[in-house]
Amino acid sequence: MTADATATLAERAATMPPAPARMFASDNAAGAHPSVLAAVTAANEGHALAYGSDAHTEEATARFRDLFGPTSDTFLVWNGTGANVLALAASLQPAESVVCTNWSHIAVDETGAPERILGAKLQTVPAPDGKLVPEQLRELHHLHGVEHHAQPGVVSLTQSTELGTVYGADEVAELCETAHRMGMRVHLDGARIANATAALGGTVSALRSFTVDAGVDVVSFGGTKAGLLGGEAVVILDPLLARRVKYLRKQVTQLPSKMRFVAAQFNALLDGERWIRLAEHANQMAARLHELTSVIPGVDLPAPPDVNGLFPTLPRDVIAPLRDWCFFWDWDVSRAQVRWMTAWDTTAADVDRFAAGVGHLLG
Amino acid sequence: MTADATATLAERAATMPPAPARMFASDNAAGAHPSVLAAVTAANEGHALAYGSDAHTEEATARFRDLFGPTSDTFLVWNGTGANVLALAASLQPAESVVCTNWSHIAVDETGAPERILGAKLQTVPAPDGKLVPEQLRELHHLHGVEHHAQPGVVSLTQSTELGTVYGADEVAELCETAHRMGMRVHLDGARIANATAALGGTVSALRSFTVDAGVDVVSFGGTKAGLLGGEAVVILDPLLARRVKYLRKQVTQLPSKMRFVAAQFNALLDGERWIRLAEHANQMAARLHELTSVIPGVDLPAPPDVNGLFPTLPRDVIAPLRDWCFFWDWDVSRAQVRWMTAWDTTAADVDRFAAGVGHLLG
Amino acid sequence: MTADATATLAERAATMPPAPARMFASDNAAGAHPSVLAAVTAANEGHALAYGSDAHTEEATARFRDLFGPTSDTFLVWNGTGANVLALAASLQPAESVVCTNWSHIAVDETGAPERILGAKLQTVPAPDGKLVPEQLRELHHLHGVEHHAQPGVVSLTQSTELGTVYGADEVAELCETAHRMGMRVHLDGARIANATAALGGTVSALRSFTVDAGVDVVSFGGTKAGLLGGEAVVILDPLLARRVKYLRKQVTQLPSKMRFVAAQFNALLDGERWIRLAEHANQMAARLHELTSVIPGVDLPAPPDVNGLFPTLPRDVIAPLRDWCFFWDWDVSRAQVRWMTAWDTTAADVDRFAAGVGHLLG
Amino acid sequence: MTADATATLAERAATMPPAPARMFASDNAAGAHPSVLAAVTAANEGHALAYGSDAHTEEATARFRDLFGPTSDTFLVWNGTGANVLALAASLQPAESVVCTNWSHIAVDETGAPERILGAKLQTVPAPDGKLVPEQLRELHHLHGVEHHAQPGVVSLTQSTELGTVYGADEVAELCETAHRMGMRVHLDGARIANATAALGGTVSALRSFTVDAGVDVVSFGGTKAGLLGGEAVVILDPLLARRVKYLRKQVTQLPSKMRFVAAQFNALLDGERWIRLAEHANQMAARLHELTSVIPGVDLPAPPDVNGLFPTLPRDVIAPLRDWCFFWDWDVSRAQVRWMTAWDTTAADVDRFAAGVGHLLG
Repeated sequence: MTADATATLAERAATMPPAPARMFASDNAAGAHPSVLAAVTAANEGHALAYGSDAHTEEATARFRDLFGPTSDTFLVWNGTGANVLALAASLQPAESVVCTNWSHIAVDETGAPERILGAKLQTVPAPDGKLVPEQLRELHHLHGVEHHAQPGVVSLTQSTELGTVYGADEVAELCETAHRMGMRVHLDGARIANATAALGGTVSALRSFTVDAGVDVVSFGGTKAGLLGGEAVVILDPLLARRVKYLRKQVTQLPSKMRFVAAQFNALLDGERWIRLAEHANQMAARLHELTSVIPGVDLPAPPDVNGLFPTLPRDVIAPLRDWCFFWDWDVSRAQVRWMTAWDTTAADVDRFAAGVGHLLG
Repeated sequence: MTADATATLAERAATMPPAPARMFASDNAAGAHPSVLAAVTAANEGHALAYGSDAHTEEATARFRDLFGPTSDTFLVWNGTGANVLALAASLQPAESVVCTNWSHIAVDETGAPERILGAKLQTVPAPDGKLVPEQLRELHHLHGVEHHAQPGVVSLTQSTELGTVYGADEVAELCETAHRMGMRVHLDGARIANATAALGGTVSALRSFTVDAGVDVVSFGGTKAGLLGGEAVVILDPLLARRVKYLRKQVTQLPSKMRFVAAQFNALLDGERWIRLAEHANQMAARLHELTSVIPGVDLPAPPDVNGLFPTLPRDVIAPLRDWCFFWDWDVSRAQVRWMTAWDTTAADVDRFAAGVGHLLG
Repeated sequence: MTADATATLAERAATMPPAPARMFASDNAAGAHPSVLAAVTAANEGHALAYGSDAHTEEATARFRDLFGPTSDTFLVWNGTGANVLALAASLQPAESVVCTNWSHIAVDETGAPERILGAKLQTVPAPDGKLVPEQLRELHHLHGVEHHAQPGVVSLTQSTELGTVYGADEVAELCETAHRMGMRVHLDGARIANATAALGGTVSALRSFTVDAGVDVVSFGGTKAGLLGGEAVVILDPLLARRVKYLRKQVTQLPSKMRFVAAQFNALLDGERWIRLAEHANQMAARLHELTSVIPGVDLPAPPDVNGLFPTLPRDVIAPLRDWCFFWDWDVSRAQVRWMTAWDTTAADVDRFAAGVGHLLG
Repeated sequence: MTADATATLAERAATMPPAPARMFASDNAAGAHPSVLAAVTAANEGHALAYGSDAHTEEATARFRDLFGPTSDTFLVWNGTGANVLALAASLQPAESVVCTNWSHIAVDETGAPERILGAKLQTVPAPDGKLVPEQLRELHHLHGVEHHAQPGVVSLTQSTELGTVYGADEVAELCETAHRMGMRVHLDGARIANATAALGGTVSALRSFTVDAGVDVVSFGGTKAGLLGGEAVVILDPLLARRVKYLRKQVTQLPSKMRFVAAQFNALLDGERWIRLAEHANQMAARLHELTSVIPGVDLPAPPDVNGLFPTLPRDVIAPLRDWCFFWDWDVSRAQVRWMTAWDTTAADVDRFAAGVGHLLG
């Protein structure tokens, strides 16, 4: 179906082609991978001690040790905000602040949970592409040692970032080196760590290159967006930081009682590198969407995406009818910029249909 | 199999009868009811907006309005500690304290989460049977209005209590009346609200009698111990307290992103009063266990249980071999007191086998 | 003594003219006005009930009612950080944030006290001249109502600002109107409110024009920098916010036990508008310093100061010898910018000598 | 003047003898010792850098090192609640609780400041005489290592206690040994440390015997009740705990800007052991009051006081007229128990007059 160039927008909106079966709203609008659900069902046999004293949790923590090395220590939790708060609680010294970008999820999208639960300042620095650079850490040096300033203590990176960019392993390593030299620790918010891993080579080695090998001290390892019903993991890489985490997890309300069900989900997701394969697929769907829509006149898109999100600018009047047809979120209303996200279950047909719809509307 | 009275304990422990299929450790050692799992599986279709903008959540909140009345407002959360913290965050005014018993879960078993996240004092008062009485509230009157004291602001009751007792509806009503007259609000920690409902008549009317009808302002409604994979609900009964809860839920890390899966679980549990039926069963299994074991010489048990827990005192040397055979937790080591809990899935055969094992060991 | 233009900097530094009797470090490097000390001495007679139940405190709160109107309520506290924390604690609703500039004392110079004690996010916005404008508030509108964002709840202005600028009464009124229309309250950090009052006319009417008349809800009224030994006041202008302040003052550690001595200081300072006269003098000394030094080649100074601080840029190598001779603080090392502050006790001779020293060093 | 035994209480109340010049309300109803005021006056010369970079503060910290040893580190603060909060902030690890008695000032009389600012649970244990015993610490052992419980981390003793009792040096040492063996630190709330020092020998050696020599880790050293206008000191005895105190002091709002004036007060108080002499006097006045009133029929008083407070039980109807004549506070209204406190400035004539009044009223 080709839109008649002389049709009005309203006319074109009234004659949209078939909509995709799935939205492009967010990767947390997707459900769970079938293997995850199967694992939960299989784990629902008889009794198991609560709070992680069960075989599923033992397996999950072993799987994480396989990923991050034998001195790593993993704590399963409910959700991303909880994972970040726990990771930071484990890392912060008294009177310290957390350095992060102005786009960081902890600063913008967690309703002040870090400030409330940690009692710590978030020191935001501007990052047009969502990525910190070492110079921004060095510029904070003058705060250190002065009693009137919260002491920069933890650097929090998001990988992949809220803007869909990805730090290279060397970039993370340089940030870690700078942070450590300044006496700071490094947290990596990996709500989309699977997508970043896929983007950087799609192997466990790739994962290790920008985490444990780069010097990161603690990781929020995302499961929910990668294909779980719900569940995240806090992976402590610096053993010195692990000492009080078991108490802190309960204290910040992040200790699942029937933990076997969170663990079983991760066991399915981590099995056979499924988490990487699913993320690779999501990334590919975003690339396909970029390929098909960036050529449509009126769609303003920069270079192909690193991971699974596009941030196009559209003619303003097109946004509402397009969204009514297949949902997605605004990103920056003032610039008519929106966000299109793919997920582990986005199909090529979904992408093709969506692109067709965009093309139809833009005539 | 009858134990030979002349056999030693070790000999008897070596010849235990067949063990129960399920432990008596806790109701959170049980898995999820099959209908709950089926509901999660059914909900795992296509995409749904995150954070509760989905049909399953709409249904769950409607179901809770059916239970608690049209002005109630329900917020699904992850776990019990989270529910309690959120309920209290919604209820507290600045510089107030929470009045609760010395046995209360919030004071004893939440690793100080309330103090950390609420920044509020827990004012514990002694309660040998786990229940507050109005006189204990009145005795706090001298604190009100004095700037040097945290101001008692919220009374937190646990129903059923941590000691397996149950408040009558009139008892809750009198506590609410006293609290309200003193300017305080009332929170009910209902991690086992299903068991209490079953104990007090097993109807929705019973539930309402000790909550909304009694004047309770906010309820932590337990799902996990009642048969979910994991999930609780904060039900705000006083509409004035609901105003900021949506922000607070995210702020205290208790906003599930793929909320449809928490909601679907509750929809299955609440359907056809299943939650009450399952709790009635658990309670009956505890009564059966009491009946069978209270007559065994050496088992010191008070009156039959109100709900699903027994707190027997045993000959000290019997505890370890009994637990090795079928797990349960200590309650008060100094008194050789243990806790036996039944769950929604405990069978009569489990109970009979357990009682047989107790009898066998006690010769 | 005139510097020989051919002398080296080291030679000129070795032949400095007589140094001023007082530094230009900060207004908190000055001591207390003699009348303040006399009042403390006079108050040190016999016993007086603690925590404000004394005649001196009664007088002080009456004096503040005279300044701010009969519905205002004043709470004496120890220091500026304490005053700000208390004022914000009184103003914030749960899950709200505080909007302030990137230069604000609460965000930069209080070691994260607000985040720790309030558990609230500080939402900083850039302000090259230290002043917020209404448009910056309006731009935060998209955060309101979205559960993922801390809710902007209190706007905190500093008057006079950390950069030595002053809001006009109309500017404050417009900010208050905008804030109130958006459902926010307004806090004014008046650590140097006396200097601002002096700058805006030097009358009580001037004070009222940019506080109570402009719609400000709560004021931190600075005493320490205005000539006290130590002491500040939190003035609640919106009576709705006063309800829990007496408890909060003790809770945030800001309740002086022998309060008569803080009150007596304020009684002396407020008597006969002494606080305005002293601040006028400090402002005049800064103006005199500007007049004498802005004409010296090498001293880069913008327009004459609104209040009692200058922020000149100097030839970099001149800073150290000048500071060794008469102390002041760096402001922005990267730009060779320093801060010169006058105080209530700075004399014309101090200024003249300091200017002479600057001129001498700069040859 | 002798009361006529046949006169009614009202008649006797109408014919009271001359009242004392000072109340028996509290030691914080007394003013400052003249030497303290003289020191403040002397310190009010010219400019001095703020926040402790001045000669007076240098002298004060040296004086405290003389008292507590060369590895001690002292931080001057505003008030007792602030000192306790700072001392505990320096001592607590994440997820720990503070063990203290049910009478402790931190638990009862600080409006929940510790919970709010520290985010930590106060674990209160009953102490009829205000003193903890080692067995009470050992009974908390079962909490250690269990993730569901706040971990007892700091023991807080009050010396002299809120009930006017005094720990012997050996008692403190045994508590410290027990605490340290259990991995806990020990805080001593010394709001009345001068009175305790006087009671235990009146020498610096006595002070050291129950602090640094006994193994205490951090001390709140009271100045206000000992004769200052206002000022306390946090003395860190375990150097490991001192590392972050300078930041924490500012963060908890306890950094005086014109610190010279707090320091000068302490310099006067500590000079020539004045603090001990003044406390000895206060203690003696309490002993005198005990001697004169304990023999009056109707006054129920236990053994002579250790320090400067009496807690008599009186005929209920006598309390109001006695208080109207010379003020003191209730202690336990339900038992008609009151508190009479002496201060550094209480005179023998004050005591004699007060005792005469008691005798007169009691006929």
